[in-house]
Amino acid sequence: MATFSNSLIQSWERFYRANFINSLTGFKSVSLVGTADKTGQTNLGLFSSIVHIGSDPALVGYINRPRNAAPHTLANIESTGVYTINHIHPSYLEKAHQASAKYPAEVSEFDEIGLTTEFEKTITAPFVKESRVKYALSLQEIIPIPLNETYLVIGKIEMVKLEDNYVSPDGFIDLHRADTICSNGIDSYYLTQPVGRFQYARPGIKPLRID
Amino acid sequence: MATFSNSLIQSWERFYRANFINSLTGFKSVSLVGTADKTGQTNLGLFSSIVHIGSDPALVGYINRPRNAAPHTLANIESTGVYTINHIHPSYLEKAHQASAKYPAEVSEFDEIGLTTEFEKTITAPFVKESRVKYALSLQEIIPIPLNETYLVIGKIEMVKLEDNYVSPDGFIDLHRADTICSNGIDSYYLTQPVGRFQYARPGIKPLRID
Repeated sequence: MATFSNSLIQSWERFYRANFINSLTGFKSVSLVGTADKTGQTNLGLFSSIVHIGSDPALVGYINRPRNAAPHTLANIESTGVYTINHIHPSYLEKAHQASAKYPAEVSEFDEIGLTTEFEKTITAPFVKESRVKYALSLQEIIPIPLNETYLVIGKIEMVKLEDNYVSPDGFIDLHRADTICSNGIDSYYLTQPVGRFQYARPGIKPLRID
Repeated sequence: MATFSNSLIQSWERFYRANFINSLTGFKSVSLVGTADKTGQTNLGLFSSIVHIGSDPALVGYINRPRNAAPHTLANIESTGVYTINHIHPSYLEKAHQASAKYPAEVSEFDEIGLTTEFEKTITAPFVKESRVKYALSLQEIIPIPLNETYLVIGKIEMVKLEDNYVSPDGFIDLHRADTICSNGIDSYYLTQPVGRFQYARPGIKPLRID
């Protein structure tokens, strides 16, 4: 087994280090974040740092890079208070990856990459029509992380749209059946292979499979 | 396509809602967090909310539940300033899941579930010997999230241990080859199936596969 110290990692060329550190933390819930500005100009960004914060209230967070590196999504969320998160599937993975390119603010990534906006009456941010699992959020809090000038953006789930045959009798959404893509590192994408679901764990009791 | 409103979701029975909301956000980087208290009493907890914060400095975050729900890991991190994050592989998935059971503080999950502690000279927190990809962190900041009394715990990577044949020439760690497990929802675990790696995306240029 190889050991890498902080000072060794620090000495690496920056792209090598970015690949290494970005992939170290494990598989990620990569998704497309849909927003619009106050004039209705739509924007779509690729984010892989989506994190479950809580179920009651239903809160979801994501890490936004420093403002100069990824300005449009955050600015739209701040000005309208609403955004959507859309799962990615193999049929448009290449388009989704392309949403990570730096387009100017006046360009909609939907047009550039060839995905379709979809609107719900009460939600001013666009969903991705092609996505099978998607949800809209209302901004609750933007928490600055001064350590590296990033932000934890937290929203409350306002609406969920999905093909409901993915929902199990106990509420679990079977994302494997939905062909939801996950990612690792900066540029690597995966489908999943189910290994098992287990009973709620209690001390001294071997957890049974429930699938 | 089915639409679920916030008020409908709010009306659901709490375990059904927890399953639904926990699985909605996508596949997660489930890992074992190893800590010790000041007397050396070890602790191992299961966390699925690990999130990449930045590569330079190398910062990793995770969401810690409210103090009364998950007290030992957070207390140990606060008192010693150091912890490890250890990937999970199929050979001990059942044991890893069992680490989510609520054991008393004086019990080490390592002993109870049958995993092995492994120590490095400069790191007082235990690694999981069985894990093929693992890293140690020094606490940088605990950011309270008042919305639901959770915490974003941020650490700096101090040491990485892995079987180095997983590292690609460009620094990317091939976690698929390491058989690293990811999770969805509260209790469901997966291996991965590679779909592709893509070139850095630039406006107007179709991204090529790099794998």
